[in-house]
Amino acid sequence: MRTTEPITLTPIGHVESRFTEPEPLEEMRRHPSRLVLRPDLAGGLDGLAVGDWLVVLFYCHRARGYELRQHPRGDATQPLRGVFALRSPYRPNPIGVTVARIEAVEGNVVQVSGLDALDGSPLLDIKPYVSFFDSDSEECDANASL
Amino acid sequence: MRTTEPITLTPIGHVESRFTEPEPLEEMRRHPSRLVLRPDLAGGLDGLAVGDWLVVLFYCHRARGYELRQHPRGDATQPLRGVFALRSPYRPNPIGVTVARIEAVEGNVVQVSGLDALDGSPLLDIKPYVSFFDSDSEECDANASL
Repeated sequence: MRTTEPITLTPIGHVESRFTEPEPLEEMRRHPSRLVLRPDLAGGLDGLAVGDWLVVLFYCHRARGYELRQHPRGDATQPLRGVFALRSPYRPNPIGVTVARIEAVEGNVVQVSGLDALDGSPLLDIKPYVSFFDSDSEECDANASL
Repeated sequence: MRTTEPITLTPIGHVESRFTEPEPLEEMRRHPSRLVLRPDLAGGLDGLAVGDWLVVLFYCHRARGYELRQHPRGDATQPLRGVFALRSPYRPNPIGVTVARIEAVEGNVVQVSGLDALDGSPLLDIKPYVSFFDSDSEECDANASL
């Protein structure tokens, strides 16, 4: 595969959230969300339990276009930074990555807290969170996976 | 956008690694890798510095196909689990998410340690790592972004 070749992904489901417009992330994370998987993928949730932490990958479907350098949080008083030094959703591949806690699992639906995705965001992946600090390395670093 | 619609992403670059075949993750993470961005995106690295931690999203281009339930690490003595309860690269959308440390930045290339991507893996995104435990929340949880 050449790296310039486009990659096509099929969403595994979508997010249901009370937020249809962007709000401060801290506010969004205070409210529960639902990860609604395609019914044919429900079996992929086997083994997840309430209280587990997930890494949720979603597509920021409302984020159109980007600048290579941006003001942090859109604050023009802050100096411009490169998009890869920012968490802005306006980026070449607008994929959101957030850790969320499982509150319930039922069939093809996972209720979570801590997610900051807008309603309708396509879900790309869900992974168990492996703590950055659970490593047996003294450096608590290079053995981490999120 | 309907969630069943495919999403097409264009890689921002690729990974250079000594590993062309899968090895134990712990072994892969011991060795340095290079994130080679498309030259037109080099400006997006402005503001990143040696010692910073990144969340690196890459496409597991060698992972073809998946089972909805798998044995952890392919160990048949372990009970089957759902793919979303595993970090297996064999999943509906094989996107790898790893935290890596910046060792050097030069032009469109970032040298990192801690990455577990195979040589040639298409890069999808790079984000600054925001510690899961830096939150001002008592719960050190729901305000986390990776």
